[in-house]
Amino acid sequence: MTKKRPLILVTNDDGINAPGIRNLIEIMADIGDICVVAPDSPQSGMGHAITVNDAIYCSKIKSSESQPHAEYSCSGTPVDCVKLAVNEVLKRKPDLCVSGINHGSNSSINVIYSGTMSAAVEAGTLGIPAIGFSLLDHSHEADFGPSHKFVKKIALETLKNGLPKGVVLNVNIPKLKASEIRGIKICRQANAHWKEIFDKRTNPLGRDYYWLTGEFVNEDKGKDTDEWALQQGYISVVPVQFDLTAHHAINQLNGWDL
Amino acid sequence: MTKKRPLILVTNDDGINAPGIRNLIEIMADIGDICVVAPDSPQSGMGHAITVNDAIYCSKIKSSESQPHAEYSCSGTPVDCVKLAVNEVLKRKPDLCVSGINHGSNSSINVIYSGTMSAAVEAGTLGIPAIGFSLLDHSHEADFGPSHKFVKKIALETLKNGLPKGVVLNVNIPKLKASEIRGIKICRQANAHWKEIFDKRTNPLGRDYYWLTGEFVNEDKGKDTDEWALQQGYISVVPVQFDLTAHHAINQLNGWDL
Repeated sequence: MTKKRPLILVTNDDGINAPGIRNLIEIMADIGDICVVAPDSPQSGMGHAITVNDAIYCSKIKSSESQPHAEYSCSGTPVDCVKLAVNEVLKRKPDLCVSGINHGSNSSINVIYSGTMSAAVEAGTLGIPAIGFSLLDHSHEADFGPSHKFVKKIALETLKNGLPKGVVLNVNIPKLKASEIRGIKICRQANAHWKEIFDKRTNPLGRDYYWLTGEFVNEDKGKDTDEWALQQGYISVVPVQFDLTAHHAINQLNGWDL
Repeated sequence: MTKKRPLILVTNDDGINAPGIRNLIEIMADIGDICVVAPDSPQSGMGHAITVNDAIYCSKIKSSESQPHAEYSCSGTPVDCVKLAVNEVLKRKPDLCVSGINHGSNSSINVIYSGTMSAAVEAGTLGIPAIGFSLLDHSHEADFGPSHKFVKKIALETLKNGLPKGVVLNVNIPKLKASEIRGIKICRQANAHWKEIFDKRTNPLGRDYYWLTGEFVNEDKGKDTDEWALQQGYISVVPVQFDLTAHHAINQLNGWDL
């Protein structure tokens, strides 16, 4: 008797043709039966956006012989992709949802802006073990090779152990050669923020506009954070929850005159 | 010597012309000097989306005599509005950021999809005390009158006491007459999720598309949740954090074979 292969949903926010998701597909096809439902275009910075006032298109892409799995290209956000996959595309609840591999970091406060992580969180709200993977390299030519064995290991351990209820994983991978990666660290999210720099320009019609850029500011000196681990050459794994209640603040607020 | 009036940034996700923000402006103008920077069109369900691949326009709207404060209409998301306000529009860091009043609930898991709450969270990451307000009534004709005194009270207490570091408030208001509102409860986020129902249709060109609808499922029977408070006729206040680390899961993950 062979053990049934797990069903794995693969998505991302850089779009279905991004090198990152092609690498993730390759890794996951080794582990289980996969189904890909991903945005038809880049959706970086979309956070937990959903499409509420518009139609969502979802097209099956022709499988090739080298790609025997099903792939769907979706006009919606990463969160839409997960909702659509679970409710319309898949015949049963997947055993795992993986999102990425993102081109660029989703460590620290980036988790709240990240479409990659929001897709994982959405799967988490539906009771599906879920992981977002990101490589600290924005380039289209980024080398995902060194990450493969670590991504596979983390996915296999998640399938074996499951995840605590209400928790998904945020995995960030340093831009290093395989021989330079020192291992995997379980971390907390560093306390950091973005200092925005708006580039003010004038369009050809004479109207001013802004372009959002920014500088990442990490004031957290802790040695148990994802930022620290990444700087030291480790892959960071942060367990992320979507119960946002600041339980420690409830007592204090009960002392207010409301 | 008069005490300096607080500087209050007002934003929302329903757009600068929505009745909800007009009510919030009216309430806040009583308390402090206000500046409005809000989306030029509805941005519901935008979550923590930011505009990274496009220009952002921001136009000053003419003030009327009855509106002596400054208002800016912005082409970006609610989070963009906060970033732009703090970095480009305001001369100093505001003492408070209020977002809303949203037309519709942002209680429980809705917090992660909500543009209203993401604007408040963004202000929080910048160290600004922030509150998102929502009324449980989607209608354009919703009656915000009964909420006024409560919104004012919560804003004043926040200005007086400040908020714990890394915490913003998610305030939801039941759709009730003033005499029926039983008071304000500090709550935790109910453990609930959306069960999606995709309405599949065919467009005039013969191509299938989906429209996202859904059913809210609350399996949390606790009497300390926002859902419970709202059902009982209370205004719910949930302290919300943006450190998403599931600290309780770290030990368990350290036991994995990674």
